[in-house]
Amino acid sequence: MFKHTRKLQYNAKPDRPDPLMARRLQESLGGQWGEVTGMMSYLSQGWSSTGSEKYKDLLLDTGTEEIAHVEMISTMIARLLEGAPIYAEADAYQSDPALAAVMGGMDPEHAIVHGLTASLNNPNGAAWNAGYATSSGNLVADMRFNVVRESEARLQVSRLYYMTRDEGVRDMLKFLLARETQHQLQFMKAQEELEDKYGVVVPGDMKDIEHTEFSHVLMNFSDGDGSRAFEGQVAKDGEKFTYQENPEAMGDVPTFKPADPHLHNDQG
Amino acid sequence: MFKHTRKLQYNAKPDRPDPLMARRLQESLGGQWGEVTGMMSYLSQGWSSTGSEKYKDLLLDTGTEEIAHVEMISTMIARLLEGAPIYAEADAYQSDPALAAVMGGMDPEHAIVHGLTASLNNPNGAAWNAGYATSSGNLVADMRFNVVRESEARLQVSRLYYMTRDEGVRDMLKFLLARETQHQLQFMKAQEELEDKYGVVVPGDMKDIEHTEFSHVLMNFSDGDGSRAFEGQVAKDGEKFTYQENPEAMGDVPTFKPADPHLHNDQG
Amino acid sequence: MFKHTRKLQYNAKPDRPDPLMARRLQESLGGQWGEVTGMMSYLSQGWSSTGSEKYKDLLLDTGTEEIAHVEMISTMIARLLEGAPIYAEADAYQSDPALAAVMGGMDPEHAIVHGLTASLNNPNGAAWNAGYATSSGNLVADMRFNVVRESEARLQVSRLYYMTRDEGVRDMLKFLLARETQHQLQFMKAQEELEDKYGVVVPGDMKDIEHTEFSHVLMNFSDGDGSRAFEGQVAKDGEKFTYQENPEAMGDVPTFKPADPHLHNDQG
Amino acid sequence: MFKHTRKLQYNAKPDRPDPLMARRLQESLGGQWGEVTGMMSYLSQGWSSTGSEKYKDLLLDTGTEEIAHVEMISTMIARLLEGAPIYAEADAYQSDPALAAVMGGMDPEHAIVHGLTASLNNPNGAAWNAGYATSSGNLVADMRFNVVRESEARLQVSRLYYMTRDEGVRDMLKFLLARETQHQLQFMKAQEELEDKYGVVVPGDMKDIEHTEFSHVLMNFSDGDGSRAFEGQVAKDGEKFTYQENPEAMGDVPTFKPADPHLHNDQG
Amino acid sequence: MFKHTRKLQYNAKPDRPDPLMARRLQESLGGQWGEVTGMMSYLSQGWSSTGSEKYKDLLLDTGTEEIAHVEMISTMIARLLEGAPIYAEADAYQSDPALAAVMGGMDPEHAIVHGLTASLNNPNGAAWNAGYATSSGNLVADMRFNVVRESEARLQVSRLYYMTRDEGVRDMLKFLLARETQHQLQFMKAQEELEDKYGVVVPGDMKDIEHTEFSHVLMNFSDGDGSRAFEGQVAKDGEKFTYQENPEAMGDVPTFKPADPHLHNDQG
Amino acid sequence: MFKHTRKLQYNAKPDRPDPLMARRLQESLGGQWGEVTGMMSYLSQGWSSTGSEKYKDLLLDTGTEEIAHVEMISTMIARLLEGAPIYAEADAYQSDPALAAVMGGMDPEHAIVHGLTASLNNPNGAAWNAGYATSSGNLVADMRFNVVRESEARLQVSRLYYMTRDEGVRDMLKFLLARETQHQLQFMKAQEELEDKYGVVVPGDMKDIEHTEFSHVLMNFSDGDGSRAFEGQVAKDGEKFTYQENPEAMGDVPTFKPADPHLHNDQG
Repeated sequence: MFKHTRKLQYNAKPDRPDPLMARRLQESLGGQWGEVTGMMSYLSQGWSSTGSEKYKDLLLDTGTEEIAHVEMISTMIARLLEGAPIYAEADAYQSDPALAAVMGGMDPEHAIVHGLTASLNNPNGAAWNAGYATSSGNLVADMRFNVVRESEARLQVSRLYYMTRDEGVRDMLKFLLARETQHQLQFMKAQEELEDKYGVVVPGDMKDIEHTEFSHVLMNFSDGDGSRAFEGQVAKDGEKFTYQENPEAMGDVPTFKPADPHLHNDQG
Repeated sequence: MFKHTRKLQYNAKPDRPDPLMARRLQESLGGQWGEVTGMMSYLSQGWSSTGSEKYKDLLLDTGTEEIAHVEMISTMIARLLEGAPIYAEADAYQSDPALAAVMGGMDPEHAIVHGLTASLNNPNGAAWNAGYATSSGNLVADMRFNVVRESEARLQVSRLYYMTRDEGVRDMLKFLLARETQHQLQFMKAQEELEDKYGVVVPGDMKDIEHTEFSHVLMNFSDGDGSRAFEGQVAKDGEKFTYQENPEAMGDVPTFKPADPHLHNDQG
Repeated sequence: MFKHTRKLQYNAKPDRPDPLMARRLQESLGGQWGEVTGMMSYLSQGWSSTGSEKYKDLLLDTGTEEIAHVEMISTMIARLLEGAPIYAEADAYQSDPALAAVMGGMDPEHAIVHGLTASLNNPNGAAWNAGYATSSGNLVADMRFNVVRESEARLQVSRLYYMTRDEGVRDMLKFLLARETQHQLQFMKAQEELEDKYGVVVPGDMKDIEHTEFSHVLMNFSDGDGSRAFEGQVAKDGEKFTYQENPEAMGDVPTFKPADPHLHNDQG
Repeated sequence: MFKHTRKLQYNAKPDRPDPLMARRLQESLGGQWGEVTGMMSYLSQGWSSTGSEKYKDLLLDTGTEEIAHVEMISTMIARLLEGAPIYAEADAYQSDPALAAVMGGMDPEHAIVHGLTASLNNPNGAAWNAGYATSSGNLVADMRFNVVRESEARLQVSRLYYMTRDEGVRDMLKFLLARETQHQLQFMKAQEELEDKYGVVVPGDMKDIEHTEFSHVLMNFSDGDGSRAFEGQVAKDGEKFTYQENPEAMGDVPTFKPADPHLHNDQG
Repeated sequence: MFKHTRKLQYNAKPDRPDPLMARRLQESLGGQWGEVTGMMSYLSQGWSSTGSEKYKDLLLDTGTEEIAHVEMISTMIARLLEGAPIYAEADAYQSDPALAAVMGGMDPEHAIVHGLTASLNNPNGAAWNAGYATSSGNLVADMRFNVVRESEARLQVSRLYYMTRDEGVRDMLKFLLARETQHQLQFMKAQEELEDKYGVVVPGDMKDIEHTEFSHVLMNFSDGDGSRAFEGQVAKDGEKFTYQENPEAMGDVPTFKPADPHLHNDQG
Repeated sequence: MFKHTRKLQYNAKPDRPDPLMARRLQESLGGQWGEVTGMMSYLSQGWSSTGSEKYKDLLLDTGTEEIAHVEMISTMIARLLEGAPIYAEADAYQSDPALAAVMGGMDPEHAIVHGLTASLNNPNGAAWNAGYATSSGNLVADMRFNVVRESEARLQVSRLYYMTRDEGVRDMLKFLLARETQHQLQFMKAQEELEDKYGVVVPGDMKDIEHTEFSHVLMNFSDGDGSRAFEGQVAKDGEKFTYQENPEAMGDVPTFKPADPHLHNDQG
């Protein structure tokens, strides 16, 4: 169960409105690697966790924090949209190219659909969907996913940082950068502990079953030989990589029985 | 540019048809973490790569191999669907519950839409979409993503392995397990090299910019104290985690200016 | 069965082309609350209706009218796109910022994909999908949905009205505003009659089954106390709202059995 | 900002596992009208609210409660999936038709993708997406949407109630029914207050602008005359409905100028 | 503008309910190639048509007919769902495997979401979306698309025909088969006339611009030589196909400039 | 199985960067009719093909070539994005309207998400999805689809050609135009051979089953009489079209039984 505090976790006040930046920040809210992806992934993983209390708690703490990040970015976007132009005559564009750029570049749905407040979309208006989130029941895999979520998200925040000079926006981004540092590091720590326990290859207990003759072979499917650089190096599980310059096709040329005529698979 | 060989990379021959297993295998083809996600992500990353030849080549080798995996699984699915029942009278169900289970549990679009061949969907018929793939321009982040892709995929293949006793299907899965071991390990190796160069926190050069007072703090947003277990431990960047039992809300209670009346934001 | 008349239901002639307005009008066509949503929802509800002739007929009349609205808006968009620029040299932008704004702000797919005619998308190019429509089999719930469809749609048309000064576009919008007034009012009337028959809480016959001790309680999950304003007020079903300042968590701390090891739910 | 309590808001313990019911409950979690739609809509509306404290607080209280409902249903689904069969030989189906029905009817991704825990999908595996949610900036329209969300959700919970005899599942559903009664009633109350202030037709201030001659006319587009029943009745805004038996097409037969030849609109 | 007649275009009465067949028929309603795709494509093409009256009228006649087909199939689905079981105890499954198959194989959303009436989805519950429809402004291309729509649709109806023995369902399918014969033939006729006017390669006026040395070459990218069978044959534009056994890569090995460091494209 | 060559199939080098053109080219990569649709459709059809070697090989050759086209366009887009502006102060817009147009019109995700490299989306940022692709098991229908894919794609490339004056971009487009000429012609040739074998109406063997009295009738559902022009003409199957001016509704006015009260289908 959850409780809500009206104060934001951190400042979300721009120095001045900027509808183009409002649009760009939607990436951090409703994009593939945005905060909603973090929030829904960590909460789902936490809720379905059956193991050690420390991982479950870490997931739920962080998932709960991410709701506050969605709240902060939503607030920032609405403030960046304050007073955004919703109409201008063509001659206004002519004398004010900056206005023209804003009218051309802002998200028209911010005004038409949301009354100049945030959406749950990315900057191109694609609706957030649960195909971005992950909760597999296997914590090693999911901790790795969480590190990726925080890595891609922090990368995007770093890019967004250089797309504005607004000190208010940057202040919030500096906070997000720091939290995404922490979240990368904490999930890495959990990942390492879990790898120590279960092995570095996920899942850890299929080694005796797989066709091991193919499990450490760099197969070369191109005329480049760059990947040969890894030949002979020691993989994280302690074994060495080998290199196969010309991997052969080991299967057959596939054939099928003709289908039931009621399927009308006219095939020539 | 690419060339195609008619022989499959590895065997894809079931011992006998099994339309339920055909449906399940769609996860490894068109699911969130299936082979199409691998193929499209690695190729895209490789094509947009500007750096070291060895990473570019590794990505393109592996992306090219994944097309062959899509081919193998497509072939396997079509063979598992051979002769699948497309109709039965109700009294046949009555005397043959196994037939009833097949009719109830197979993907009806396998017959209606695809004439008993593979789709590009997951087992629930959701079409593969590019929101599953990632190519960010940052190889550290993307190598991590690739490790996750191979981890979640190998986890699913491991589960699929126990959902059949067909030795032909299992033979192919054992091959995929091995290749996903290799791909996890090779992308991990690349990831580690890149981390050595750029730092473990992605991206590596924003440390002086972020609000560092929040970058190593475990914030507790729950009544669980499990995450305290990480307190004082050394993070991968060499600094220690601290623990904040009661993180305070540092921002303001957000207020906004009323919107332009032409937006009709009637708000009470 | 349907018949088509070539004349439009109402005028759809702009005074002059305006590709930015063409893009914005896509919201009223293919957006979440656009005319396609109305048309597909009302027709589906009407076709599946089993009850009183008057509701069935009202739904089918209105659904049929909405096809004509899709036709009008499609026509208007194509006319707004007449002669839209599809290319300009950079120096043309320099001397003509209004042209630059148009090139930056129009939907590039209007030209590339549709040859300067309407799409079935919203202004951000998201394809209309049936997840926007509703047909539940319960007319009380669906009449409420219909009132919302007409409310959100009329809100958007009102916003669009202030985004242009073209009297031809405004003439069509004034017609749509009026029809959305009628549709709001007619569906409200139907809703009220149905509420009189079935009760104001949908569905009406589960009152004896639900845990009634929680059915009129304003639960406070925040440090705001604004919602206390409703305490003691009479709800539409005649009972009074009570206020719970500190709602307690009544369930357990969830635990699960470990999963079958064949699922590889490595959990720490 | 948010805090999390490990105890659930209410009981979420089935008497026994039932993977088919687990699948069905996904509708209340990740379906069009499920709890995620409530949570994301109410929180978004609350965060972007600029008006009276009481509506803002009501929205945030309820949005916060909905996260707890997502938590409860996720927990219930995971428990219903405990020990679900992931494989059976064909002869087991033959002797155990109930097992066959489970294998055919459960969501295969529950096992393959989520390790027998909840997804963020509906029962057909369609991922939740933000196109289900609404936050328009206009509270009258959005309160109406919220009443619909609670109406469709309570309708579905009522149907789910009769799809199980498990007293543990039913206990949770009885709680959800009660909360959805409260939420319908509270949002209706807010809606009525806002209608009193802004008018019953959303938005309230476009009456002088619309073509009023069409704003109270039941237009008959069918050979049914059921909708004539509303003729002469008083609409909620105090005016009377009129009925037009044969609405004429008032617009022109649309014509367009031929497109720029560079568009290759070959049209015959 | 449109008018509606309450009588269906043709019979849509099953001999008896069959919820599995109801599910399968959703393909013809809301699937990629279903009637909604036809209706929305033909109407959009007709509305945006600027050329000869005969093609515009053909498109609008057929688009209008397709709405009636959506109506018929929706009606059929609702009737097939009459009395469908929504619950059964496990021991009922045991003694009635046919019931078990129905419970396992029907679409659970038919009951939960739609109260046993039709949805706008395909049999796997994927919502119809406008990405299935086409309206390009070029009638040659679009007439070809329309022939495909009718071909894939008639193929699916043919398969559905053999998935039931219900004479009422088959009667409707026989009608749809015939109409899809007509629609294939009429769109082919229009296509041929347009090809006569504009050329068989779409669009017809780019021949002088393209690199013609590559426009009639069968390039062999595989170790199969099956496509050599077309060598020397006369293409529809009167020229002969040539065959290139080993197509060379004519472009460069791509290189890029390193990106702006503010993008953090760490590339190794 | 596949092998990759580092050299591109053809040149993909623009004369100079142009981020607006980069955005437009995404249509040819990840749009509904883009190269990914070709690649995934032809490969899927080829892999599931059971018939004549020549069609299977033609499909796999062409599918393999399309991967190279995706590679070329991805490369071109990345090069067009080199050095694209990611930020400018408002006063820079004022003095440089061309810059303003670029900032307003480029895809913001090219920078934020992809570090100025290609995405797998269309120009409006919609992710490619498998609902664009087709593989039905029936080669006549699918060859027709393939002709459409190449027709719509070549139409779009023709439009794109006139949206730039960059000779490097045009050089690549001229190559794509030529290959799409070849692909249209080769698939047409295959289509014709298959039609000769199976008949022009797909599928060919349902003629005795359909209600033939409706299979050659132009039904007029509008007040236009343009489609009468086809009356008496000979259809491709040798029979003549007839014209029905006033097609009657032949079905009943649909009625349904009331639903089970446990569904709560309150209907008035």
